[in-house]
Amino acid sequence: MRHKPEVLARNLIASTRLFRVEELQLKFSNGVERTYERLISRAGYGAVMVIALENFERAILVEEYCGGTERYELSLPKGLIEPGEDVLAAANRELKEEAGFGAKNLEHLGELSLSPGYMGQKIQLVLAWDLYPEHLPGDEPEPLRIDYIQLKELSQLIHHPSFSEGRALAALYLARDLLSQRGLFPS
Amino acid sequence: MRHKPEVLARNLIASTRLFRVEELQLKFSNGVERTYERLISRAGYGAVMVIALENFERAILVEEYCGGTERYELSLPKGLIEPGEDVLAAANRELKEEAGFGAKNLEHLGELSLSPGYMGQKIQLVLAWDLYPEHLPGDEPEPLRIDYIQLKELSQLIHHPSFSEGRALAALYLARDLLSQRGLFPS
Repeated sequence: MRHKPEVLARNLIASTRLFRVEELQLKFSNGVERTYERLISRAGYGAVMVIALENFERAILVEEYCGGTERYELSLPKGLIEPGEDVLAAANRELKEEAGFGAKNLEHLGELSLSPGYMGQKIQLVLAWDLYPEHLPGDEPEPLRIDYIQLKELSQLIHHPSFSEGRALAALYLARDLLSQRGLFPS
Repeated sequence: MRHKPEVLARNLIASTRLFRVEELQLKFSNGVERTYERLISRAGYGAVMVIALENFERAILVEEYCGGTERYELSLPKGLIEPGEDVLAAANRELKEEAGFGAKNLEHLGELSLSPGYMGQKIQLVLAWDLYPEHLPGDEPEPLRIDYIQLKELSQLIHHPSFSEGRALAALYLARDLLSQRGLFPS
């Protein structure tokens, strides 16, 4: 691991309801100086993404309107962790709000970043199984439609007309890989 | 597919060298109105991420200082597509600049988004193989260190102390899955 660049200056250069942009003046260990910008999310307690298994062959997707791509997209249930809430409780709450299921078993798989080059955000990945119907009201403007993805068909998601989210694809592949290692999914 | 919400208003509310933030006033088909924020990248020609295979068992990672997480991170070679450059040429150029290899074979696998809920950015995934040493000068402030990941060990990346990028993990899993389907990697 190399010596980190020295932070010569750090300034907040933009601020909105959801985002803050910070400008960093960096001096690398070889003497080169650069100006970087980084995006800071206001999601202070982090976020969670749920790979919810209907069975060991398929997982739940939810369809939601996405402001970034300005279209409806299929992805995994996800949302912000609330103050005082642990990762597994947040995952189960989001699953109930977005997909109408609770899970008797939840396992924290790890965390992923979005784009570490300019964003600090991380999302916690939670595997959920042994589902039962339970719906909680959420903050969504309209009910989400749910769908399913066969774990053996993950490579087809890259060509799906309404799926695009990289970290959701990573989460699904990781879950399939772990199930396979545990002898619960045919490798 | 549902009827998209109506955009009642669209305003640019922040602008920096790298980012623009747009505020959308949306009216959903059920009458509910909400304010969304979306982040627009200035990367007008898109971006590319390269899964470069040293052989069909391991791929190249590069270590770069990341302003978002403020640490050195391992990820796949990636960068912005230049004006007039096609996806495969951009992938090969980034591979030469960041990892010091060119590829005799390049294949476009598809595209992924970062976080479609509030970002429109997409990244093109390119599989590269039949590598040869060739270095091009890039715009990095310091040379990147290269490393390798065994494709059979992808599930361990979630616990690697300097790897975190979700779309890079998705790209590696997708590449392994495609190699496996083609009989080039043991499933």
